[in-house]
Amino acid sequence: MKITILRLGHRLPRDERITTHVGLVARAFGAEEIIYAGQHDSSFEESVKRISGSWGGAFAAKYTEKPANLVREFKKKGYSVAHLTMYGIPLPEKADEMRKAEKLLVIVGAEQVPSEFYELADFNISVTSQPHSEVAALAITLDRLMEGKELERGFSEKFEGKISLEPNERGKSVRKR
Amino acid sequence: MKITILRLGHRLPRDERITTHVGLVARAFGAEEIIYAGQHDSSFEESVKRISGSWGGAFAAKYTEKPANLVREFKKKGYSVAHLTMYGIPLPEKADEMRKAEKLLVIVGAEQVPSEFYELADFNISVTSQPHSEVAALAITLDRLMEGKELERGFSEKFEGKISLEPNERGKSVRKR
Repeated sequence: MKITILRLGHRLPRDERITTHVGLVARAFGAEEIIYAGQHDSSFEESVKRISGSWGGAFAAKYTEKPANLVREFKKKGYSVAHLTMYGIPLPEKADEMRKAEKLLVIVGAEQVPSEFYELADFNISVTSQPHSEVAALAITLDRLMEGKELERGFSEKFEGKISLEPNERGKSVRKR
Repeated sequence: MKITILRLGHRLPRDERITTHVGLVARAFGAEEIIYAGQHDSSFEESVKRISGSWGGAFAAKYTEKPANLVREFKKKGYSVAHLTMYGIPLPEKADEMRKAEKLLVIVGAEQVPSEFYELADFNISVTSQPHSEVAALAITLDRLMEGKELERGFSEKFEGKISLEPNERGKSVRKR
């Protein structure tokens, strides 16, 4: 399954760290790339590049000026579209159906997502029906799509990074190559 | 199972939003309270109070000046202690054992957690062995402890808030009382 993340409404400096967390979760939990909209932010793109450079993988961040058009293009390319919103249908009720998609675009909003995206989405998905965090919502969604495999020992090896970690009961085991 | 979150090393303004996300995830995913260390931040405490006031539940944020002492006190009160760190043992290998605890203190660090906490913890737990987000790590950990129940339709009702949401395929259904 090929997963792309679309992060809407990035604002500086407010979303600087949250969008970085969204990007790093996307990478660590098995997505292919993140595309973001809102304010252009070369330092976000650099952060993602730096992490991928050290820790491995081909994950990258790209910018789009017209996110709704991008969603339409992805749909034409055969992507299913899931929009994460606390107003949506609980994830467990839709996870099996979402996993059937070969290609999935997961939309992660900041505040006030335009109604257009609710309409464009094949799935409007809630990760709890309470306010919390788009970082958490994305992590839980990807976890369900990956069926928990991203948490297992050895998953990290697929990144083939210069740095990797060996699980340790009480300290830090860092491998460098 | 009674779960308390300990957030270490809160710094202003850097961690303002991340710590808020940590707090809201703690609440939405079934923890009882969050205690934070680092810089005192009444606006964080207020945010948590405001959300609990509207969306329900008794969840609250408290401050501690001496987090290591607090961990020792919790251990004396019979709490098991889990520290989330990418250097730790993969969550799936420890989740069953963690769920046996009646009371659990989950430690969430910011940058550079002092080694003391690795020693104090009964479990040093990794949520993937890659760098990403303490918000995501906490959400996934609580999800495993709750066995996914927090995602189900109806879980929100336990909060008995003034505001609650009815899952909606494409729009927003807000209930007020």
